Parts: sequence; structure tokens; C-alpha cells
Amino acid sequence: MSAVPNIMDATHAPDTQSWVESANAPDTDFPIQNLPFGRFRHNVLEPWQIGVAIGDRVLDLHATGLIDHNDMHRLMAAPVAQRRALRMAIWEGLCEGSALQKVWADALLRQTEVELGLPCEVGDYTDFYTGIHHATTVGKLFRPDNPLLPNYQWVPIGYHGRASSIGASGQQFHRPKGQTLKPGATVPDFGPSARLDYELEIAAWVGMGNALGAPVSIADAEEHIFGLTLLNDWSARDVQAWEYQPLGPFLAKNFATTVSPWLVTMEALAPFRAPFVRDAADPQPLPYLESAANRAQGALDVQLEVWLQTPAMRAASEGGVRLSQSNMRDAYWTLAQLVAHHTVNGCNLRAGDLLGTGTLSGPAPEQGGSLLELTQGGKQPITLPNGEVRTFLQDGDTVILRGACEAAGARRIGFGDCRGTVLAAR
Amino acid sequence: MSAVPNIMDATHAPDTQSWVESANAPDTDFPIQNLPFGRFRHNVLEPWQIGVAIGDRVLDLHATGLIDHNDMHRLMAAPVAQRRALRMAIWEGLCEGSALQKVWADALLRQTEVELGLPCEVGDYTDFYTGIHHATTVGKLFRPDNPLLPNYQWVPIGYHGRASSIGASGQQFHRPKGQTLKPGATVPDFGPSARLDYELEIAAWVGMGNALGAPVSIADAEEHIFGLTLLNDWSARDVQAWEYQPLGPFLAKNFATTVSPWLVTMEALAPFRAPFVRDAADPQPLPYLESAANRAQGALDVQLEVWLQTPAMRAASEGGVRLSQSNMRDAYWTLAQLVAHHTVNGCNLRAGDLLGTGTLSGPAPEQGGSLLELTQGGKQPITLPNGEVRTFLQDGDTVILRGACEAAGARRIGFGDCRGTVLAAR
Repeated sequence: MSAVPNIMDATHAPDTQSWVESANAPDTDFPIQNLPFGRFRHNVLEPWQIGVAIGDRVLDLHATGLIDHNDMHRLMAAPVAQRRALRMAIWEGLCEGSALQKVWADALLRQTEVELGLPCEVGDYTDFYTGIHHATTVGKLFRPDNPLLPNYQWVPIGYHGRASSIGASGQQFHRPKGQTLKPGATVPDFGPSARLDYELEIAAWVGMGNALGAPVSIADAEEHIFGLTLLNDWSARDVQAWEYQPLGPFLAKNFATTVSPWLVTMEALAPFRAPFVRDAADPQPLPYLESAANRAQGALDVQLEVWLQTPAMRAASEGGVRLSQSNMRDAYWTLAQLVAHHTVNGCNLRAGDLLGTGTLSGPAPEQGGSLLELTQGGKQPITLPNGEVRTFLQDGDTVILRGACEAAGARRIGFGDCRGTVLAAR
Repeated sequence: MSAVPNIMDATHAPDTQSWVESANAPDTDFPIQNLPFGRFRHNVLEPWQIGVAIGDRVLDLHATGLIDHNDMHRLMAAPVAQRRALRMAIWEGLCEGSALQKVWADALLRQTEVELGLPCEVGDYTDFYTGIHHATTVGKLFRPDNPLLPNYQWVPIGYHGRASSIGASGQQFHRPKGQTLKPGATVPDFGPSARLDYELEIAAWVGMGNALGAPVSIADAEEHIFGLTLLNDWSARDVQAWEYQPLGPFLAKNFATTVSPWLVTMEALAPFRAPFVRDAADPQPLPYLESAANRAQGALDVQLEVWLQTPAMRAASEGGVRLSQSNMRDAYWTLAQLVAHHTVNGCNLRAGDLLGTGTLSGPAPEQGGSLLELTQGGKQPITLPNGEVRTFLQDGDTVILRGACEAAGARRIGFGDCRGTVLAAR
């Protein structure tokens, strides 16, 4: 039996305080129980450095002496035992009363004073489709009597996405142009997308890789995941509808994808495991997607929210309005199943690869993780509290994804914002 | 008007001889008119170095003093004028009578004495679907009355592929396992693919990139392509049929992709340009995919062949049997159109990205670039000259792709073999 990253240890004790004051605030995403990894720099001329979020600060990890490099892929690719030892060392140094406080105080920076980048260079980006409520709602728009295709409950459906256009929180991008087909038309139009949307997702980041031709069993799968971020899979629905047959989404998705900057580790998520549930009436997973450990605690309880800040709200110094809430626990497949499926044909994963979950919508209509769902395909506009109306995104709109974990006997941890803004088409 | 890479100059003169004897053989793929770039090493402990193929040799480019690094991305990302100057310098040094012969003779290695790797690290891999004869034949298998979907003649259909599993010629991979659905079944099977296939493609490798949000116009598009290789997009048809709805191929393709080792530059291909032809009865390209230069010479005349060497042939020291011939000129879209389309939504390309053409089949049934086409979906097995029969690939089969360009007034150039072998499932 291999080491798994979901073991509880001293780093999870809910009452531990840090000498970094802001880490003890009840509403911080980054208490000492979290300790997520990211990359920061002071300016564009400086190379990216590895940091750990603690309260409103970043701990410069190289400056602590705990690592002798700034290669995030290398850090991520370490075996679980080594990852856990590093987490423990960071935790000990940041604990209230630690003798290291005097030294490490100089390694602390304000998060607002540095630029936070992508957690690492992204290799291959795969996007799955584990949100069965999303798949059902979207499927109903196209096939009212047969929303889920026959393969959905057997195959963890996925496709390859574009790595080059993935950006860190704060990403701004121009509304994409493309071909679209108006209803009833036979000749396409060309112009800015009129149905620009977001998708609420979680990204799992690969740590340890596997060799080509060597599948990862479901028992070992979680060892290969380093941690999670939020992910916004921006989508141009009108472009998507016209282009996606027969090979899937392409220009409708690859103009921008935004992720939150902090890799919340699988170790930090240990208190927030949940059972993998499959209705008895549903097909049960094939053997390569099945294990007792996965049944017992393969899922993750991550509360998710989507917020919208329009230009009018920004002008009025309003932070935005919450559009929906959902939970990662409602995904149809677990992360371990995604890794086992992805590699079962011999496909190799590498440190820095990213696996998106697909849109994580809840079972209720108001829990849709995209405007396509919340507006029933654009037919039911949403009226915002300030009187503004949206069917799809307007220029200047900022979408903010948020995620947090809460459980009895555990300190709440959060993901930090995943924020992106639509600029006018060029 | 920007520099374009298809200008003829002294390096294309057909009668030029090299002091490297083997480059003057009439059947070599690598005469002095070609000069493709690749990467080689003496052993696995050595970093990859940049080389140029000349006859049966490799010229160690760093050893010539023409470059002071071995970073292929950097070499590829140079502007066209710089690329052309480097080509000219290499050509002058290798010409019969060059004063550099004495010095450069020490920089020559036998190709058989070194390992040839991927031409560079692959960033993002996009696969298009420009083979209209392939799309029509495959479409007919699913939709006899409506083989081409309505978008095909408007949109250069493409999807994202997997970069991690791309290997250089000589790649060997295990037959993939996966989920498949037997005819009439409602519960999938799991096991080795029984319908393993190849696909004959060309890969265009990106040199100069573009910034996110800054589309590349069709006028500038070819500046962003450094050169071409052959590409075998291995495909598990039974896995593909079950998994691909609604988001496209995934595990059916990402277990292995093989490319030839030598980047044949757009400069070397200048004598082999062909007009882009669109039947008057067909939809004409939208303005962003249209230019006079593209009409005049946007296409490329590259003769393509697929060869099969079975284990029995190998045991009998037979090189293999030719399964089909086709030509890149029959692609429905040009490379410039692919780049313009890929970036029209603002998507950024980077040095080392790879754009596959999709399967390049000719109009005649025997010109199919895959077994799926040659066997009519597996219904018409092929009998090989030695009496063996194939519907799809068997364990031990080696598939060899070959490509060459010939034109009046030009020296023939070739691509070198793209060779891959199927191993038994693990």
C-alpha cells in the first residue's frame, strides 16, 4: 500500500496559532493549517520565487533555507513523504512560539506588495466534465429528452485544453472574436462573441509524474496530485455551438483560462474528505475506477462561490454580487478516478500538468456554475440587486471564484480569489 | 508587407553540390538544398544539441560557431530574415569548395551514430482536420447521407492534443487499454484496443509566437511557422467511438504520437508551393482566412507515403510494403489559414507549439491515410503481398511515414522517416 496524502497530523490541529498575526484572523483563507504554495516576484525583471501564503503575507521559502532552489516543478514532483516533511517544517517555523520567528520574519512579504503568478509553468492541460448537474442542464438545452449521453456514467469524459493562455488571478483578456451561426442562418457571421460565459471549476495540479506506458492505479492516484486551485474556464458559447462538432471545443475556450495563485495541497485538504457516492440505480464504476479507499473518502468537500463585479459596481466601490454556490462534493468522479482514467491507456502525466474538473454545478437550478445554466441558455436574464441585467458577460465585468473548506474539528481554509476581467474586443 | 519565408534564393539552386559526398546522392532526403534542423545526442546523459541533416550526416551547429547556444526554441523564434541568414551561412559552409570544409569536417557526425530526439520540447499541440477526403470517408461511416458536417467548409476544425506523449521517430508504445462498447451492448468492456490505427499527418512547428490577445493576420501567418515534420497520430478507433461525444477524442489519441526528427524549414519548401484552390461551388473562406498570396501559393506540394513493416517482414529482412500515397496539396486549408484561425480569438502561440494537419488522404479510396479508410471501417481487410492480412494494426507492426517534395527546376528534398512500433498491451 502506497503512502496517501490524506493523513491527519499535527499540522491540522484547529487551535494552533501562528506568530504571523493575520493568519489567526477567523476569516483568513490562509491560517497556519493551510500553507499553500505559489510563485511571486517583486517585478517583471525578477525570476519567479516560491512562496507560502500565511495570513496576508507570503513566506519566501528559499529565504527560510528549507529549499535550495526556486523550481516549483521539482518541489511538486517530490514523493508524498517528502512533501509532508516540508509542510511540517514550514508549520513548525510559523507556529506561535517558534524559535525561527526572528529569522523568518525577514522572509515575510505582504501579498499586496508582490505579483502572484501561475503556481508553476503548465505542461499539458486536461479538462474533465465531472459536473453531472452541469452536463445534465447543458445537455437538456440540446436534447430535452436525453440530456446525458450513454457514455457519461461510464467514462470520466475529458478533453485536452490550451496551456498557453492560462493566466493567474487578475488576468484580463479581450472578448474573443470568432465564427458564429445565427439561428436559421446557413452562412456564419464573424465578430465578437455575444455569449461570453465563465465556468466554475477546480484544477488539480500534477506533482509526481508517470512514465509513458505505465498507468497509475486508483490506489496510487492521489500521490500524483500535488494540490488544487480554482479555475475559470471562460467560454464563448456562440463560437462553441458552431465549431465543436465533431472534435470538441477549441477557439471557444482557448483565448483565456484563469486560475487562483495558491496551490492548496492535498495534505491541507485531509480534514475535508468525503465519501464517493454512486446511486445504486446508476452504473457502478469499472474495476480500474473502483477502490474501497475511494468509496470511503475519495471526494472533497469544497464550498464554491461565483461572484460578479460589474463596472457600475466597481464605480460604486461595491465588491460584487454572489451569483451561485455549489460544492465539489457533487462531482460525479473523484480526482483519483480522473488520474486513473487519464493514465489507463499509458498516457504520461508530468509535474505541472493540470486537470480541470469541469463546471461544478449543484443539483438546484440556482447552483449552476455558468451563466449558460443560470439563464437557461440565455433565455432567462438575471436581474442583479442594483437593477442591472445579465444574460452573458458584458465588457468590464469581473468574475471572482471563491472556495473554502469547513468541517467539524478543523480550521477553515480557503483558496484565495480567482479573478478575471473581460475587456472589449479589439 | 512583412517578410515571408517562401522566397527563392541561391540556397535553392538545384545543381549545387556539397563537399559532404552523401548529400549528392540522388535519392538522399537531405541534399544541400534541404538543411533541416533537429536535435541529437551521443547518449542519454548528454543534453540535446542542435544539428542540421546533410546527406547521411549531422552537422553539429554549435561546433560550427554559427550559434552560441543549443536552445532550439530560441533558434526557431527568430524573425524570418535571421532564419534565412542562418540558412545561407550553413549552405555556404557546406557548398563544394567552401573554405570552411577543413574546420566543419570535425563538426560532422554520422546520423546512425547519434540519437535523434524531438526537434524541440513541444508546448501546446493542436490537431486540425484539414483532410477533407479523410473527413468525408470517415463521416460516411457514421452518416452515409451527410458525411460532412455543416461547419466543415467554413471552420478549420481543430482540437487540442496531448504534448507529453509525443515521441521522435523510433517510438515504441504499448497497445492502449480502454473502455469500448461492443455493437449492441449497453455495458462497456475494458481491455486492449482491437482497432488500433495510424494517421498520416504533417506537423507545422511554431517559431515566432504571438502575444495573448493579438491575432496573427493571414498575411503574417507563415512568419510564425518554422518548419514541418511528418506526424503519426496513432488512434484507438474502438476507444474513440465510445468516448468522443460530446467533447472530442481523448484517451483514443493521447497514448502516443510520433514525429519525424528533422524540421524541414519553410525556407527549404519555397520551391514547392502550390495554389490554394477552392471549388466555385464551395463556400469561399471568410475574409480573415483569405488573401491573394494564400490563393497564389498558400498550399504545399508534399508527396506522402505510408509503409507497413510487419514482424514477419522484419524477420525476412523486408523493409515493408507501401499502403498508400497522397499529397499535402489536397488539404482543405493551408497552414497560413490554420495559424490565422487559431489566433483569431486572441489565442497565443509559442515557439515549439505544434499544429497537426489532420489525416492527409487523397481523393481516391486507395489514398486513405489511415486503416479506418483503407479497410472501410474495418469491413474490408487488406491482403499484403506476403499473404498477411490486416484490418487494424497487430502487435509488432511498424508504421513508417515518408514525405518528399519534387518540382521542375528544383532538387528533390525529403523529410526522413517517421517510424513507430506497436508493442503488446501490458
